[in-house]
Amino acid sequence: MIFVQTIIDFTATQGLSGPSLWLATTPETVDVDRGALVIAGVLLSLITIFIASKVGGEVCSRINLPPVLGELVGGVLIGISALSILVFPESGAQASDSLIFKLMELGTPLPPEIAESIFESQSEVIDVLSELGVIILLFEIGLESDLKELIDAGVQATIVAVVGVVAPFALGTIGLIYLFSIPTIPAVFAGAALTATSIGITAKVLAELGQLSSKEGQIIIGAAVIDDVLGIIVLAVVSSLAKTGEVQIVNIAYLIISAAVFLVGAILLGRFLKDYYVGLVNNMKTRGELLLTALVFCFALAYIANAIQLEGILGAFAAGLVLAETEKRPDLEKQIVPVSDVLVPVFFVCVGAQTNLNVLNPAVPSNREGLIVAIFLIVVAIIGKVVTGFTVFGQPGINRLAIGVGMIPRGEVGLVFAGVGSASGALSASTEAAIIMMVISTTFLAPPLLRVVFQTPEPKSEAVSSNSVNSEPK
Amino acid sequence: MIFVQTIIDFTATQGLSGPSLWLATTPETVDVDRGALVIAGVLLSLITIFIASKVGGEVCSRINLPPVLGELVGGVLIGISALSILVFPESGAQASDSLIFKLMELGTPLPPEIAESIFESQSEVIDVLSELGVIILLFEIGLESDLKELIDAGVQATIVAVVGVVAPFALGTIGLIYLFSIPTIPAVFAGAALTATSIGITAKVLAELGQLSSKEGQIIIGAAVIDDVLGIIVLAVVSSLAKTGEVQIVNIAYLIISAAVFLVGAILLGRFLKDYYVGLVNNMKTRGELLLTALVFCFALAYIANAIQLEGILGAFAAGLVLAETEKRPDLEKQIVPVSDVLVPVFFVCVGAQTNLNVLNPAVPSNREGLIVAIFLIVVAIIGKVVTGFTVFGQPGINRLAIGVGMIPRGEVGLVFAGVGSASGALSASTEAAIIMMVISTTFLAPPLLRVVFQTPEPKSEAVSSNSVNSEPK
Repeated sequence: MIFVQTIIDFTATQGLSGPSLWLATTPETVDVDRGALVIAGVLLSLITIFIASKVGGEVCSRINLPPVLGELVGGVLIGISALSILVFPESGAQASDSLIFKLMELGTPLPPEIAESIFESQSEVIDVLSELGVIILLFEIGLESDLKELIDAGVQATIVAVVGVVAPFALGTIGLIYLFSIPTIPAVFAGAALTATSIGITAKVLAELGQLSSKEGQIIIGAAVIDDVLGIIVLAVVSSLAKTGEVQIVNIAYLIISAAVFLVGAILLGRFLKDYYVGLVNNMKTRGELLLTALVFCFALAYIANAIQLEGILGAFAAGLVLAETEKRPDLEKQIVPVSDVLVPVFFVCVGAQTNLNVLNPAVPSNREGLIVAIFLIVVAIIGKVVTGFTVFGQPGINRLAIGVGMIPRGEVGLVFAGVGSASGALSASTEAAIIMMVISTTFLAPPLLRVVFQTPEPKSEAVSSNSVNSEPK
Repeated sequence: MIFVQTIIDFTATQGLSGPSLWLATTPETVDVDRGALVIAGVLLSLITIFIASKVGGEVCSRINLPPVLGELVGGVLIGISALSILVFPESGAQASDSLIFKLMELGTPLPPEIAESIFESQSEVIDVLSELGVIILLFEIGLESDLKELIDAGVQATIVAVVGVVAPFALGTIGLIYLFSIPTIPAVFAGAALTATSIGITAKVLAELGQLSSKEGQIIIGAAVIDDVLGIIVLAVVSSLAKTGEVQIVNIAYLIISAAVFLVGAILLGRFLKDYYVGLVNNMKTRGELLLTALVFCFALAYIANAIQLEGILGAFAAGLVLAETEKRPDLEKQIVPVSDVLVPVFFVCVGAQTNLNVLNPAVPSNREGLIVAIFLIVVAIIGKVVTGFTVFGQPGINRLAIGVGMIPRGEVGLVFAGVGSASGALSASTEAAIIMMVISTTFLAPPLLRVVFQTPEPKSEAVSSNSVNSEPK
């Protein structure tokens, strides 16, 4: 609408074709409506992203895998590793590498420098939408978390969570430094990516097995919730370390203190202000009063977290946790779903589209290290979580193996680590790909492994399983 | 996330302050995390936009005016005419003119050329979000419209609608050309902006008066729906004329035919495909299956409309009309609301923020023409709609004046004309401001005028009135 004003006149160097020929004011001159081309590119990118996310998600859901995995794989298929429909300038791609851009240029070829400028603008908009997607995702996770539940899940869940964060982080980081001679910062990043269990994936797998309300299920879910918070703090600490480029005690202390002060401060302030917030919303008479005020709060905390050198997503998560404590939570959870359905796939598909899986091609000798790192990360990811079950005490007869295996799937947060790490320049392409391989593998392996360790003898549990896949919350 | 990779090293020319000083790796060098700054700017812009839209909307709703008017005025307040919190490069503003940018630079001043580049990227993202907002708005209007209702409303409504489009368009365009010597294209644009009645505003005012289901109310609503479709066709025709810069019969014919073929074709194709669409959605098992497939359809039609020289919003409206005919309509209407609540205010607030009301300052002699044009447009806007009531036949005793007055409020579509016209360069700043003055005035004037012409004698109707304002659909 607005930057349509940026109209650039230039003399066409190539012949014009299509209806624009006879609509052009003079045959030699074309008005490039820059704004209309950027919006056209964004529309085509969003169409591609939505189709990739839905095709991938539906295929995965039909073969009993989490849809989020399908969005990632869908992204890989349309991205730089395969079809090159959606590519980004950051990977060295140009407008001419993008199939979307080729389609836009069908009728009216553009001079290269204008094409590059439009291609960059369009990619930048998709980047920001993807970033807003992960902010909304963490806001939603915060909203679905429950401070009281975290406290009720108690000591058992906390121990499982802490061990499940420390063990894979220590094993992974130390192993990468000493076995693979990887520098400290990328090793810390890869180790950190091993920490957070995916609440969504875990809960879904437990529901499939009818184990959500068992004692094991309760401990797993409680631990996964705590895990998620720990993982986000670890992410904030690690990515800030990567940004400043050095591991300094004063930095670590500053970050841990600011993360703690920020999270605790936001929650305490939120508790203090929440009655005023609910009162304000109840007094508002116009449409969107709940959603927009919640997003103002979410974006404000994301901005503050950003401004004090933490990650924006930590602020979004804190905003979700605070608003989860108000009576508006059920309404807000309902209203955030469509926004999240639209924006979150942009994030996952973009992560996939930017993953250059060619770095894991074993035919190229220099790639083999990445593959070996991936295998190492997968082994550590499994061992580091399986041990957690054996820390449970005072629960005779509990299925310790099931608890550990239940913590195996990594998901959103692991991918966030890969994305943030790669974006900040801390992770090499092969290590990033190895992390994504680890996320994909743990997500693939967990459902069948869980089925084995829960040893479901009744054949009807098979039916329950396939039913609950179909009844996944929409 | 992704373009965080674009890290630019530069030697700081100004002293560093804040925590970034001791976090920087060397005191003389700062890493500019371009992506993080763009997303920070977008977050602050969205926070400002949401607050402006809600404060404006709430104030208007309390003084019995449509909230959309408040969003516009809120935009004017934070924009270039007043506080300069949210400004755009298109108006000649620089990063240093933006209060948002000044806030971002508080801790770490940026070198001017980098600041300008980040300011431009951030403004471009907000522009695209605003454009997506108007696409979603027209999709929602299409979804709320009803082809059958259009047909049932019948001959009366059609005549009222057609006269209500032709009369103000002809009066306005001819008056501007002959009385004010305004060139043909801007005159046609301003005339076209007088055509479309605001469905939302009209329906709300009728509900306030308890007249929604009266015969007059039925005709008004039916005519307003048809009006809206005519207005969009007029918009597509007029803005394409403005783009190609000339009024050629072949262009007009091409545009009318392509608009008709596109609209009719989309609706026929939609009718043919809608069972497959519903079947596809019913077979999908993952979250967001309805909303994402609907948006793919909406964005695809918007892209096609764009590509054949029409406006994207026409495609979005057609997509809404088509999906309104499926059994998924109620679910889709529910799911689009939060997305629309988030994106649509970006459009209205940006329209307001970019309106330079200073061109209407009567203290400056050169501005007086704009003011006189505004007064002329307001008079034509009222007369052009009031006459429509007198075209109704075969309805003895009907309140003809009420029908005409009920068509007075202009809203979204009028503002779209102002935005598109200004963006395409067809409208001068003063004519654009005059159109916005006309929209604001008709919207302000209609509620009290309607109350007078419906001559509500019972005092209790006052209570009904204030109740229905409060119970505006949220």
